[in-house]
Amino acid sequence: MSRRRGGREARIDARNAELPEDIKPVRLGLAGNRYHCLTEPEMARIHQTVLEILSTVGLHGAPQSTIDYLTAAGAELCPKSGRLLFPKSYIEDVLAKCNRTPLLAARDPAWDIHPYGENTYTATAGAAVNVVDIENRSYRDSTLQDLYDSARLADELEHIHYFQRTMVARDIADPYEMDLNTLYASLAGTRKHVASSWTTAENVQKSLPILFELAGSEAAFRARPFVSMSCCFVVPPLLLTEDACQCLEVAAKNGMPVLLLSAGQAGATAPAPLALSIAQEMAECLAGIAYMEAVQPGAPFLIGPWPFVVDLRTGMMCGGSGEQALLSSGCGQMGRYYDLPTSVPAGMTDSKIPDAQAGYEKGYNYALVLNSGANCIQEAAGMHASLLGFSMEGMVLDNDALGAALRTVRGIEVNEDNLNINILRECTVDGPGHYLAHNDTIARMQRDYLYPEQFDRFDPKLWEELKSPIAVERAKKYVQDRLQNHHPNYIPKDLDKSFRARFPIQLKQAE
Amino acid sequence: MSRRRGGREARIDARNAELPEDIKPVRLGLAGNRYHCLTEPEMARIHQTVLEILSTVGLHGAPQSTIDYLTAAGAELCPKSGRLLFPKSYIEDVLAKCNRTPLLAARDPAWDIHPYGENTYTATAGAAVNVVDIENRSYRDSTLQDLYDSARLADELEHIHYFQRTMVARDIADPYEMDLNTLYASLAGTRKHVASSWTTAENVQKSLPILFELAGSEAAFRARPFVSMSCCFVVPPLLLTEDACQCLEVAAKNGMPVLLLSAGQAGATAPAPLALSIAQEMAECLAGIAYMEAVQPGAPFLIGPWPFVVDLRTGMMCGGSGEQALLSSGCGQMGRYYDLPTSVPAGMTDSKIPDAQAGYEKGYNYALVLNSGANCIQEAAGMHASLLGFSMEGMVLDNDALGAALRTVRGIEVNEDNLNINILRECTVDGPGHYLAHNDTIARMQRDYLYPEQFDRFDPKLWEELKSPIAVERAKKYVQDRLQNHHPNYIPKDLDKSFRARFPIQLKQAE
Repeated sequence: MSRRRGGREARIDARNAELPEDIKPVRLGLAGNRYHCLTEPEMARIHQTVLEILSTVGLHGAPQSTIDYLTAAGAELCPKSGRLLFPKSYIEDVLAKCNRTPLLAARDPAWDIHPYGENTYTATAGAAVNVVDIENRSYRDSTLQDLYDSARLADELEHIHYFQRTMVARDIADPYEMDLNTLYASLAGTRKHVASSWTTAENVQKSLPILFELAGSEAAFRARPFVSMSCCFVVPPLLLTEDACQCLEVAAKNGMPVLLLSAGQAGATAPAPLALSIAQEMAECLAGIAYMEAVQPGAPFLIGPWPFVVDLRTGMMCGGSGEQALLSSGCGQMGRYYDLPTSVPAGMTDSKIPDAQAGYEKGYNYALVLNSGANCIQEAAGMHASLLGFSMEGMVLDNDALGAALRTVRGIEVNEDNLNINILRECTVDGPGHYLAHNDTIARMQRDYLYPEQFDRFDPKLWEELKSPIAVERAKKYVQDRLQNHHPNYIPKDLDKSFRARFPIQLKQAE
Repeated sequence: MSRRRGGREARIDARNAELPEDIKPVRLGLAGNRYHCLTEPEMARIHQTVLEILSTVGLHGAPQSTIDYLTAAGAELCPKSGRLLFPKSYIEDVLAKCNRTPLLAARDPAWDIHPYGENTYTATAGAAVNVVDIENRSYRDSTLQDLYDSARLADELEHIHYFQRTMVARDIADPYEMDLNTLYASLAGTRKHVASSWTTAENVQKSLPILFELAGSEAAFRARPFVSMSCCFVVPPLLLTEDACQCLEVAAKNGMPVLLLSAGQAGATAPAPLALSIAQEMAECLAGIAYMEAVQPGAPFLIGPWPFVVDLRTGMMCGGSGEQALLSSGCGQMGRYYDLPTSVPAGMTDSKIPDAQAGYEKGYNYALVLNSGANCIQEAAGMHASLLGFSMEGMVLDNDALGAALRTVRGIEVNEDNLNINILRECTVDGPGHYLAHNDTIARMQRDYLYPEQFDRFDPKLWEELKSPIAVERAKKYVQDRLQNHHPNYIPKDLDKSFRARFPIQLKQAE
């Protein structure tokens, strides 16, 4: 190891020391709303189509309780088709009175999420059934331990703002045990907000004591809900699903924020024209809001228009495509059009492994969707093979790219300080002909410029000296180190003991 | 090889057949102007700063001919400081009358570039001194053959719209021979527009016969200039350089479009505040326009605000950063503010090799900058280690990512056809509950959706069957195939022979 390298690294480490939160170049909840793939008139036109879909096509397959809630609130059941129709005036009423300011609380309040207005956050999500083995370039079944590992890694990564369940614990067969352990492993692994999902209403009910006890009381949980529900209440196109609807009802009644997910696939379960696909997504989500409001007025929710894309040649999902970036950005912008708390997906890749393709696909999707006005960008970390595989190393690299994309969300400040021509005069006419040593430059080094953790900026010679590591190899080292050394259990010891006595918790006890 | 794979691949190949130009999902010169990192008032404020820089700080180091041209046209030479100052009214006059519609002609007119209005194009550029050896993960000196190889590869890649010199032919020591051979290898390798650069005015003069003879006559070249000059007439901050200025004069007089390059590095040769850095870039470029207009009114040009970024901890360039995406996008947007033909850089990476980091950095830079309103996005393909290394495999992968980014530039069409709710009715209420087989879906398969060449959308099982290739390995196969089989020489045989008799051309003769 050369001397030069040691000195340089020490200097980099020193300058790289933890910054006070308020001068960080990238902070939580930056305002992102500068990429507009739709014009105002175009959004108004999509909105008219949304209303037409809801009032003339409507949803089908509604379970009885859904029919009861919604018809009592203003929807109409078409006696002939059995479809639930939503008159325009009803939707307008719902939009006028719904809760626009949900809190996704974190057990560590520093990570509280306020997913509304122009605030922009990133989060994981997914139901990957595989973990990517980068060493053998292969896929293996994901387990509960993997889920916990991904939670504690996300806990350490600055630009991943909250944690939604990433993987299916395929080593647990029983649906109740899976739901419960998914929740528990997530809560154990991260102090950030947790989003999870449940297969039945009964499983939600049985999980509530854990949430209330962790909060201190039911009221405390309702005041600061640190767990939200990701709920596929609708299966596109426009079909309601009984189990998910009943889960939604339990959440709405218990103050648990609900992500109203509509995950259509353009060309398969959603229309191939991008604009119509967005309209179907938004129609389904607005129906979801009506439903939430009917069950519990003012219940906190986010809409989740998650418009996916299929490769029309093969039917394979292609979450890394340019079309995906447009669909997610369009939905993010529609969220701002309605001023609704909005989550959209970005950062999936069709590549199986964190290679160059994964980087490109994630990169261009992040950049546009984070700037689209969506409040929460999910599926943002670790997702490969569209949504089939999860990579720990991928998540670590995603963190750096998310940081850079968030830097673009912060944007360019144009003000007196940042257009101070005296700096230019001092460095040119009166100065050395460069800006390197000017006080303003030095002051901005940490405030205006973001430095990546794993991305490598060394010159080629030094890189060769270091044996030419590629990104995924550096990420692998980080993963190994963190999984070896970061063993949080954010469930207090006494409660953990009590829960383990009452619930079939399978997560190995933390040391 | 399994049977299943053969069938699938055949189907994919069939559906992937070459499309008529007019129904392609991504076409040349798409209108891109949907990402606005600056507001109108912010741009007006930057413009005021630009005028102030030009009128009160000005440029220094001007050679006598530059002083003569510019003072005759309206600039003032400050007797005390020797700086050239540009009064506001002079700049406004220049902006009112300059040529806003340059043509970057291609010898194959299908590839003509109209870099103005909202048209968006991509191109290579750079002066890399190394080629990336992906096999050994090392860098080696670039040669004339490498330059020709990169030109003929770019010739084959659909989403690289023109070719600017990518590498320095380090196997040629003499500056005249290097200039001449750089031009010649580029012209031999691609039918697309060629941009090159020269070290002295004399070298430009000596190259002109080649251009005129290839065109058929001087007038024919002036009518369809298929070669433009990339010219660093200014070394930021605000220093004019004699040799480059004289090159510019020759180009202006001979109808060769000039890319007026200002390549400041924020924090080093440009101010650290992003807004002020953009103002300095634009000031330098507007001075360049004044210069062009003074030498030859109506001479064709593009402004080239190429604002780079240094890592303030180390002084290393970091062209893959989020700050880079902001600076390039901001300059692209300022180009639209002035309605000037504008080139900006995007797609450099700090990674040494086409790995995940390279993908991310290129991906998020492409996405924003291509949507910023800049007309030409350069340094867009193959550039690694910021600008030190060129990778053939990287360029091939860049092509796929540029395609996806261009798909986002095309955007979401909102019109009656694309919001036709009847499609939705036919597939839901009256139909099978999905859109897969609908005529509209099938018709859009090739028209609305772009399919990548190298990016892999296989499912994990099939990928493992194929021995789990990563992106760069697939790109390598493509490079090997093309370099073995695509040996264009776009210089007609008789002319080639004649040129070789008169000029020290070192490029090996095509078979």
